[in-house]
Amino acid sequence: MTAGKEISGPADPRFFTRAGPFGAEQLAEAAGAELVPAKAGDGVVRDYAGIAPLQVAGPADVSFLDNRRYAPLLEQTRAGLVIVAPAFVDKVPAGCAALVTASPYLAWSRVARLFHPLAPARPGIHALACVDPSASVAPEAEIEPFAVIGPNAEIGPGCVVGSHAVIGQGVRLGRDCRIGNHVSISHALLGERVIILPGARIGQDGFGFAVGPAGFETIPQLGKVILENDVEIGANSTIDRGSVSDTVIGAGSRLDNLVQIGHNVQMGRCCIVVSQAGISGSTVLEDYVTVAAQAGLIGHIRIGTKARIGAQCGVMSDIEGGADVIGSPAMPFREFFRNVAVLRKLAKKASGTAQGETGKV
Amino acid sequence: MTAGKEISGPADPRFFTRAGPFGAEQLAEAAGAELVPAKAGDGVVRDYAGIAPLQVAGPADVSFLDNRRYAPLLEQTRAGLVIVAPAFVDKVPAGCAALVTASPYLAWSRVARLFHPLAPARPGIHALACVDPSASVAPEAEIEPFAVIGPNAEIGPGCVVGSHAVIGQGVRLGRDCRIGNHVSISHALLGERVIILPGARIGQDGFGFAVGPAGFETIPQLGKVILENDVEIGANSTIDRGSVSDTVIGAGSRLDNLVQIGHNVQMGRCCIVVSQAGISGSTVLEDYVTVAAQAGLIGHIRIGTKARIGAQCGVMSDIEGGADVIGSPAMPFREFFRNVAVLRKLAKKASGTAQGETGKV
Amino acid sequence: MTAGKEISGPADPRFFTRAGPFGAEQLAEAAGAELVPAKAGDGVVRDYAGIAPLQVAGPADVSFLDNRRYAPLLEQTRAGLVIVAPAFVDKVPAGCAALVTASPYLAWSRVARLFHPLAPARPGIHALACVDPSASVAPEAEIEPFAVIGPNAEIGPGCVVGSHAVIGQGVRLGRDCRIGNHVSISHALLGERVIILPGARIGQDGFGFAVGPAGFETIPQLGKVILENDVEIGANSTIDRGSVSDTVIGAGSRLDNLVQIGHNVQMGRCCIVVSQAGISGSTVLEDYVTVAAQAGLIGHIRIGTKARIGAQCGVMSDIEGGADVIGSPAMPFREFFRNVAVLRKLAKKASGTAQGETGKV
Repeated sequence: MTAGKEISGPADPRFFTRAGPFGAEQLAEAAGAELVPAKAGDGVVRDYAGIAPLQVAGPADVSFLDNRRYAPLLEQTRAGLVIVAPAFVDKVPAGCAALVTASPYLAWSRVARLFHPLAPARPGIHALACVDPSASVAPEAEIEPFAVIGPNAEIGPGCVVGSHAVIGQGVRLGRDCRIGNHVSISHALLGERVIILPGARIGQDGFGFAVGPAGFETIPQLGKVILENDVEIGANSTIDRGSVSDTVIGAGSRLDNLVQIGHNVQMGRCCIVVSQAGISGSTVLEDYVTVAAQAGLIGHIRIGTKARIGAQCGVMSDIEGGADVIGSPAMPFREFFRNVAVLRKLAKKASGTAQGETGKV
Repeated sequence: MTAGKEISGPADPRFFTRAGPFGAEQLAEAAGAELVPAKAGDGVVRDYAGIAPLQVAGPADVSFLDNRRYAPLLEQTRAGLVIVAPAFVDKVPAGCAALVTASPYLAWSRVARLFHPLAPARPGIHALACVDPSASVAPEAEIEPFAVIGPNAEIGPGCVVGSHAVIGQGVRLGRDCRIGNHVSISHALLGERVIILPGARIGQDGFGFAVGPAGFETIPQLGKVILENDVEIGANSTIDRGSVSDTVIGAGSRLDNLVQIGHNVQMGRCCIVVSQAGISGSTVLEDYVTVAAQAGLIGHIRIGTKARIGAQCGVMSDIEGGADVIGSPAMPFREFFRNVAVLRKLAKKASGTAQGETGKV
Repeated sequence: MTAGKEISGPADPRFFTRAGPFGAEQLAEAAGAELVPAKAGDGVVRDYAGIAPLQVAGPADVSFLDNRRYAPLLEQTRAGLVIVAPAFVDKVPAGCAALVTASPYLAWSRVARLFHPLAPARPGIHALACVDPSASVAPEAEIEPFAVIGPNAEIGPGCVVGSHAVIGQGVRLGRDCRIGNHVSISHALLGERVIILPGARIGQDGFGFAVGPAGFETIPQLGKVILENDVEIGANSTIDRGSVSDTVIGAGSRLDNLVQIGHNVQMGRCCIVVSQAGISGSTVLEDYVTVAAQAGLIGHIRIGTKARIGAQCGVMSDIEGGADVIGSPAMPFREFFRNVAVLRKLAKKASGTAQGETGKV
């Protein structure tokens, strides 16, 4: 059984570089956390060599607790230093120091990044890349083998364009973008620090056609895609360009894998769209909207600021800011689960009657 | 907020070519619409330089109204010419001419295409493409860098095979097909004018295996994929080849992004399958079937002509021609919404009782 | 209508090689089935040249019946030999021999493979591949054009790495793996006989970030992906690497197309995940779990051995081994269909009241 498999430490040196060691004070500063020395042991503030999950960490490792369901692991950890919320300080073993913060996950992210910094771009165009003479590639950018850079495209300093990525005619990448392997981008303008994971498709034709006398006729898709600063797009996701206006993903928004964004969608700042969700054409998401996995939104609706759309939710109309909806069709979270409970009760009551009606897939 | 962002005009010259200008008569003819001169202004039938949405169009632009929810924008537009249905002629501003037609969206598509024609193939095989000596590539076809054309493949005149596309052994493309970047096609025969957007996968092994004594054993997938004339396949969609018979997508059918088509599916003429929908193996769709976003069909069923499957619908059995179904399991549209309404009412009534039973994700 | 189209035989010679002919005894042995001679005809045990579906098979073809809904075709087949379960022996036409077995689908798979063996690797590195000098490629492996093999990667004997596949730094492939076109693999260790279909993404960053003062901050993803022996991954599926521990797909498990596997997921032996299903981060599947199409599992839950998750199911909590669930939220199969039946009955009763409340998408 997999569940019984031994858990190996993170940051396998075959795949990750490692910086450090770092002292506890240095880590506390990076984490923005308060350092609480170990209650027992030699009390010496040592240097730490790396990070590890609670189960496998040793005295030279930093670990963390974020999800309360893993709290029992904290009491048994052999880690030398743990990042925890104030509520868990009491559970830290005597020989272990703590970095205490209201945001342990954020602190963890910074400590982990300190030990394992992102490799910088290695400037230069690989001999096997295909760069149009009219393209403008910053000398500080890295272009990997078999990448294609089209006519008049602009690649900013610090960008990494992965193997087999295709950057179409006129596309502009701001500084420090990371374009994964096999990504295709056309008809698009990207801000700074945009990250696109492998296989994502940005800027292709939207799904638009009219019914003509001899079949469907394609509506020319004449808009573009705007990815603002710090946007991140998951693997194999698809973002169609606008038909008349543009498809816009607002600054800091994050899309997971296999997400579909239809033409003319406008998304505000810091939205989250989880895996396999889909947003149909011309729908507007205001800022800080969360769309959970496998949810679907029809076109031409508006989702208010900070609304949260639950997993598998089917949204057929506007949603107010701050609302919390789930179900298909979407309804308030509490109402959905109340319906589930009531139907279960009614069905149990009626079960004698319903006997034999159970379906078959 | 994104929603407050300025809307820029379409057809950014970095990405799109532009033809014209065109006179009103010429546009009326292309659109198959009746020209209604402006009620006020100089009455001169001018030339038009381009297209634009109602909000940003100026006197030299053509615009259109298709969705009644945007009607208020019509009354304020500064466009010189608008395409509208007869019902909206009265709302056209006095200084604006109109192209009146029962099919404004179709007319719009033709006018937009007139201004922004699809770039023709640029005949020739790029020096960085990899074409097997036994393949047959029409001299009028365009093969882009890093494309691979396998043994005995046939590429018809007017085809464009995008960067990094892989056309497998024996695959045949009829004339004027457009194969996007990063597409892979194997075990497939394509008709004419087939369009495949980036990253789609055509003809790979279907999901077939039998349970053997030591685990699953793969069933050899010995069929192929047939894409008939004028089929369009969206980005990152997947169409498995048949296991014994073929997987067939009928003439004129259009599939959106991230759609899954299982082995041996047979789809008739002019079907529509919207984003993230999935059709399981050996299911048959007759002609003009619509499958909305995120719907799922089990295998070995038949969907009748002109049936419409709603978004997120789960179809577990045959659907009659002309039916309109939604829900999971699928039921008639009216019944689904009646159920929703009745359950809501019952739950409200019972809400005192159900208190405290609300779930938690 | 497509459904009326003529069904062509399988194994088009443009796409498939063919071995044989084979005698009935030889086929019986390969199939692990009992040979029952034809009741009528010349009684001669002939050689068979190929395989075909019941409708199109001739006297030199082997065919099979697995799905009882196609039984009427058996009685009319002109096939010379059919593979059937004992229950159908009586329906085999008089002139046709039979291979009788309790596992006709498995027997079919072996007979089909005998006639159409998988082409072996053609050892060698294509001149247009890009292999890092520090990579270790077995001389018996085949590396196709435009493939990229990164630093210190290891490619085992018998592997085929397809066109445009990218094998990242340090990645290890055991013997006889088949990596499809356009696949990208990073931060991953693969066992033997692993098959990855075109466009799958293995080992990219998981979806992890913390809320910082200026927006989201990425959590470094420091785990890897482990694909054990005989794993198969469908086209355009995405498997994120672990954040701290690893993402593990257990031996013999099969994932269909467009499947999403989040970071740290641990999957046991011989699990099945059907198309467009998604499994969120840190969820554990024990052995022999089946997840049907478009189902979604939240993170941090455990699914017991041999549990079966129905199509479009939404799983929000642990599922016991052997359970059979469907619906969103997930419930026992019988309960789901009872609920459906009861709600339908209640809604019909209330239909006078609900009139006019029917929704509109």
